[in-house]
Amino acid sequence: MAGSTYGTIFRLTTWGESHGKALGVVIDGCPAGLSLCEEDIQCYLDRRKPGTSSVTTQRREDDLVEILSGVFEGRTTGTPISLMVRNTSQRSADYSEIASYYRPGHADYTFDQKYGFRDYRGGGRSSGRETIGRVAAGAIACKILKQLGISVQAYTRSIGPIEANLSRFDGAAILETATAMPDRDANVRAVEYLQKAKQNTDSVGGCMECIVRGLPAGIGDPVFEKLDANLAKAIMSIGAVKAVEIGDGCAVSKRLGSENNDAFYMTEDGISKITNHAGGILGGISDGDPIVIRAYVKPTPSIASTQQTVNRSGEEIDVSIKGRHDPIIVPRAVVVMECMTALTVLDAMLMNLSARMDRLIRFYHPDAD
Amino acid sequence: MAGSTYGTIFRLTTWGESHGKALGVVIDGCPAGLSLCEEDIQCYLDRRKPGTSSVTTQRREDDLVEILSGVFEGRTTGTPISLMVRNTSQRSADYSEIASYYRPGHADYTFDQKYGFRDYRGGGRSSGRETIGRVAAGAIACKILKQLGISVQAYTRSIGPIEANLSRFDGAAILETATAMPDRDANVRAVEYLQKAKQNTDSVGGCMECIVRGLPAGIGDPVFEKLDANLAKAIMSIGAVKAVEIGDGCAVSKRLGSENNDAFYMTEDGISKITNHAGGILGGISDGDPIVIRAYVKPTPSIASTQQTVNRSGEEIDVSIKGRHDPIIVPRAVVVMECMTALTVLDAMLMNLSARMDRLIRFYHPDAD
Amino acid sequence: MAGSTYGTIFRLTTWGESHGKALGVVIDGCPAGLSLCEEDIQCYLDRRKPGTSSVTTQRREDDLVEILSGVFEGRTTGTPISLMVRNTSQRSADYSEIASYYRPGHADYTFDQKYGFRDYRGGGRSSGRETIGRVAAGAIACKILKQLGISVQAYTRSIGPIEANLSRFDGAAILETATAMPDRDANVRAVEYLQKAKQNTDSVGGCMECIVRGLPAGIGDPVFEKLDANLAKAIMSIGAVKAVEIGDGCAVSKRLGSENNDAFYMTEDGISKITNHAGGILGGISDGDPIVIRAYVKPTPSIASTQQTVNRSGEEIDVSIKGRHDPIIVPRAVVVMECMTALTVLDAMLMNLSARMDRLIRFYHPDAD
Amino acid sequence: MAGSTYGTIFRLTTWGESHGKALGVVIDGCPAGLSLCEEDIQCYLDRRKPGTSSVTTQRREDDLVEILSGVFEGRTTGTPISLMVRNTSQRSADYSEIASYYRPGHADYTFDQKYGFRDYRGGGRSSGRETIGRVAAGAIACKILKQLGISVQAYTRSIGPIEANLSRFDGAAILETATAMPDRDANVRAVEYLQKAKQNTDSVGGCMECIVRGLPAGIGDPVFEKLDANLAKAIMSIGAVKAVEIGDGCAVSKRLGSENNDAFYMTEDGISKITNHAGGILGGISDGDPIVIRAYVKPTPSIASTQQTVNRSGEEIDVSIKGRHDPIIVPRAVVVMECMTALTVLDAMLMNLSARMDRLIRFYHPDAD
Repeated sequence: MAGSTYGTIFRLTTWGESHGKALGVVIDGCPAGLSLCEEDIQCYLDRRKPGTSSVTTQRREDDLVEILSGVFEGRTTGTPISLMVRNTSQRSADYSEIASYYRPGHADYTFDQKYGFRDYRGGGRSSGRETIGRVAAGAIACKILKQLGISVQAYTRSIGPIEANLSRFDGAAILETATAMPDRDANVRAVEYLQKAKQNTDSVGGCMECIVRGLPAGIGDPVFEKLDANLAKAIMSIGAVKAVEIGDGCAVSKRLGSENNDAFYMTEDGISKITNHAGGILGGISDGDPIVIRAYVKPTPSIASTQQTVNRSGEEIDVSIKGRHDPIIVPRAVVVMECMTALTVLDAMLMNLSARMDRLIRFYHPDAD
Repeated sequence: MAGSTYGTIFRLTTWGESHGKALGVVIDGCPAGLSLCEEDIQCYLDRRKPGTSSVTTQRREDDLVEILSGVFEGRTTGTPISLMVRNTSQRSADYSEIASYYRPGHADYTFDQKYGFRDYRGGGRSSGRETIGRVAAGAIACKILKQLGISVQAYTRSIGPIEANLSRFDGAAILETATAMPDRDANVRAVEYLQKAKQNTDSVGGCMECIVRGLPAGIGDPVFEKLDANLAKAIMSIGAVKAVEIGDGCAVSKRLGSENNDAFYMTEDGISKITNHAGGILGGISDGDPIVIRAYVKPTPSIASTQQTVNRSGEEIDVSIKGRHDPIIVPRAVVVMECMTALTVLDAMLMNLSARMDRLIRFYHPDAD
Repeated sequence: MAGSTYGTIFRLTTWGESHGKALGVVIDGCPAGLSLCEEDIQCYLDRRKPGTSSVTTQRREDDLVEILSGVFEGRTTGTPISLMVRNTSQRSADYSEIASYYRPGHADYTFDQKYGFRDYRGGGRSSGRETIGRVAAGAIACKILKQLGISVQAYTRSIGPIEANLSRFDGAAILETATAMPDRDANVRAVEYLQKAKQNTDSVGGCMECIVRGLPAGIGDPVFEKLDANLAKAIMSIGAVKAVEIGDGCAVSKRLGSENNDAFYMTEDGISKITNHAGGILGGISDGDPIVIRAYVKPTPSIASTQQTVNRSGEEIDVSIKGRHDPIIVPRAVVVMECMTALTVLDAMLMNLSARMDRLIRFYHPDAD
Repeated sequence: MAGSTYGTIFRLTTWGESHGKALGVVIDGCPAGLSLCEEDIQCYLDRRKPGTSSVTTQRREDDLVEILSGVFEGRTTGTPISLMVRNTSQRSADYSEIASYYRPGHADYTFDQKYGFRDYRGGGRSSGRETIGRVAAGAIACKILKQLGISVQAYTRSIGPIEANLSRFDGAAILETATAMPDRDANVRAVEYLQKAKQNTDSVGGCMECIVRGLPAGIGDPVFEKLDANLAKAIMSIGAVKAVEIGDGCAVSKRLGSENNDAFYMTEDGISKITNHAGGILGGISDGDPIVIRAYVKPTPSIASTQQTVNRSGEEIDVSIKGRHDPIIVPRAVVVMECMTALTVLDAMLMNLSARMDRLIRFYHPDAD
């Protein structure tokens, strides 16, 4: 079954393995006439690139994107946009040993069970490098949303026990700190915590949050294509994410209705809500307030500490995963969350174009009234 | 855009409003030859039926299902199965007032923004009665899974601050208690808590959990059709759910890798994991251990307490929602979670049929070797 | 696999068997705000109803449609529209014999091979009654297209050797003659021909044609969702159709390029083509000229003449099909062709809403410029 | 809207323009464990390559395919297979003039109407080079089908008035003659006819036929995913095809039922049909006999003869299309028809895996009985 395609109208298909020749994505359904060049995409890919700070792997990958189709004279043509990143610095020798056993917390065992064998080099298709295609496509979705007046911003909410203090939110810090936290003070403490974990040959989990601003009310489709349902899928599909919250998330389960309901009131611009416990979504449809999503990420499973596992011959063995691994996934995953959110929101907006008869008539007969 | 269809191979389309003539579902893609009668489905519908305990609404709805197509001489024919439940006891007069304003925490405002108007009777399509179609289809999925040796069981994990103690798990209690908790002691305390909330014209949130046992390793498709991603969508699409966890969920974000990785070991039946923090899914593919999912549910938004809101003329008003509402959604939503999980798992198993070349050849040439 | 769903945005799912309790369709993705009542649909169903002339079966079926959901206060709400027709006059006794053998030209054998058994009453799901769902949904598509200024008209082009003379095209005759021919003279000769065939316990094939007028240029999506490709699928999915032509169809294979190319020229309303060999579609996209489609239909396979076949025990036998069968399928299939064409064209128009960036911005920011 | 994806389980997405950097295809859903190398694909691409005979364009394109992902140690891994062909010999200067006007019979006008502008170099996305992706994917489908005992063979049936005589069918001739006719004598006459047309600066249409042998009964899904309906779409989506026939096609419209029905009889291998007017499909499901499909292709629209058209400024002009164009499309399109047929049949076979409950149980519990 085909599982590498995402989206109904703005639809992407990603491909490629960690140590194959290249990775890429085909975006089909991008509206024609969008100005687009490689730099629009490269700046997003650079945010997930390893080797940029002390708390990411020291592997170097340039991850330069090439536009192969779908853009003519600087504008999208409406036909499929093919993007490719060549793998350059992969050293397969590093990984030859892991062919023989199942790394705890990884997909080695489940891929073997599903397909009968696996491309074991660097995790093959289950590697984090798979997200290159998502980010490349997401960069285009973000550009379109921006032209529609909508911003999507993700950041690190917490790393292990260290939480960003959002009351001193600093947007620039997201791009400038090693942890992608919007709080420079928390960043310093988190880096310290990560370095200690690294010294202990261990790894760390964390939480990331994404906010969508400017989305009009009315986006999302009952009952299975609800905006929150599709966001949950999009975010849970990112490797290592184990929980997704919308708005106040888990906390609502301990609330009373009188505490949790968001009262409506009138503003100069129309109806709004006094609070936003709902995270901008009611009945699966956006309500005009910011969309708030959180994702909880497990610690990087590749650690140098000794672990028990089983090899392909069915023998129990002790292993210690070598290689240059991130002590935490979150800082590089933030841009992936941003991109998956943008792709989901954009697709929902395109699906919404046909929701009303009056707007359909106006689309095809703009001068009718 | 069409949003009422779910699944790729085992595909259902639900329809109907709270106070329309009827609600129903069409299931397309059900394998031929399954023994099926109305009682197989009715027993699931009865679990979501209101009026069965002190902590659900006292509205009476019989919700009798009728099989209209797709079954011949007691067996499914492979063609669409149409199921219908007639609405009988709806009293539209109860709801006429709410046509004029937007209930906090409900989809009234967002439906109006999306479609220009709404069927305001009992919430129309955004009513909890929409889940009748899901449960009717899910009953069939559960029956198929059972024949494949797979069980799906959901229950109430917590109600407000009252948590079920799983160390004294009592499966029979799920069907026998008012709260669907697997812990009769916690049930007593939860009922008490709910009655107090009701007296205070308030409502309560909670948490439900679902376990899938017997699922073979290898189910789920990287990278966007991961089993956990599709489960997250399925569960988040249930009204009032605001967070979804797989395995240890949010808790992994505070863990070290050495704590969170599940070590593999050998059993008589093959490879297994010593712990199951992962909730039975690695890299989006089932690993043979039980699948564990949790959903966090907000308090029922319809409360009799006075709330501030806005009417369709844009005036701020105070309202108190009348009518017979559940003080909590969870006990009746447990069977919905069970059904959405079963539908998702079954569809993933059908998609997995084409994963391997050797099995494909054996399917079409069973006598070849 | 689910095969009873059609369309991407305007999406229908049909269900029901010839002799089951009922037949119906769920339409999901219909824009909100369309005025709709049962009479809008009934008048289309009446055109495919049997028993209305000497050249259709004398079975009587009222085929009264009931709207079960998706319409509130006379307008579509944007949520699924469920339509149902109860089966009333089915006499299963008529068909009990055919349970034991395979009728030539029917799907009895292939259903048994696929599913292991079949609902043999009146052909079950493979009966022409299956088209009730298509026509009910198509009636809504036609109503929407009409409001967009687009008409869809199908008629009988030929019956056996008798061809309608289109130079004396009479639109009213389509609805008034027994054959649905737009030529009353040809109709008289065709009725005579059919009665002779009937006396000989035989049946007759024919050809039907459909014209779409008013469709703007630009509809259809390269490369697999071309308008002609989707029309070919839609029309070929109608039982008994064995060939589909667009524009001049088969005839182009014997032409020279200089004969077949349609020259462009200027009209007061913009660019047009001097001829329309292409049938209104270039590169899979509508060009603004009328869309022209033809379908070739085989003779009704149920005939009273003696035929050789095989029974379920694998014995060769001679059979003579009893029961009240149409001597020709075409006159009642014309409205099915009209409806499948309308559904395809409407879905393509909805898919086209997202083709251009400038129109997307204008949709969400109508007052921007 | 996304239109470049084809198939539900075995799903391909093609991309690329005639004069862009490259063209390619991503195949998702290919079963794991298929032995695959570039040569398997190259030999299919070579059949559509230009410059190989006197009756194709003298442009030289090497069209060398590169496998970028999805194959590890010579076998497919179950993850997306990305295939790419770099464009090397494109001379965009040849086409600069056509940017300004609309070529009759081409998609220039309709692309402009749909997207607002177009990549005019060599037809951009509407070029015949788009089929490179289809053929590359189809080569894999053919390899899988062969392992399942199924062959797919297409050939030229007629060119202008010259028809192949199938009573002297010569399979080798299909690959060896300039016209891909299975009749060397007809080929000689057809080449002569084509050269005359070329001298007259004109082009020629033709007909191609495809036969599928070895397909088991039971493939195809009623009512919209019928095998013939999907084949009609697949074949009509090939540029320049204007009609599709299944079995005896158009001819059935002039038949009596007693002539057209195929009688069943018993063979040593089970049930078969004495004749095959149906072309191997009854009720949309394969019946075990050969599948027969025909496609009618219009003459190449690019001709050097003077034609009337309109330019982008809305002025009527006379044009003569320069450049190296095929005098006929058919010989190079035969392999495209073969590939689209194989892709359709394979996908239908994969969809059929879930048709029966007993087979589903046996798949997951092979040792149960």
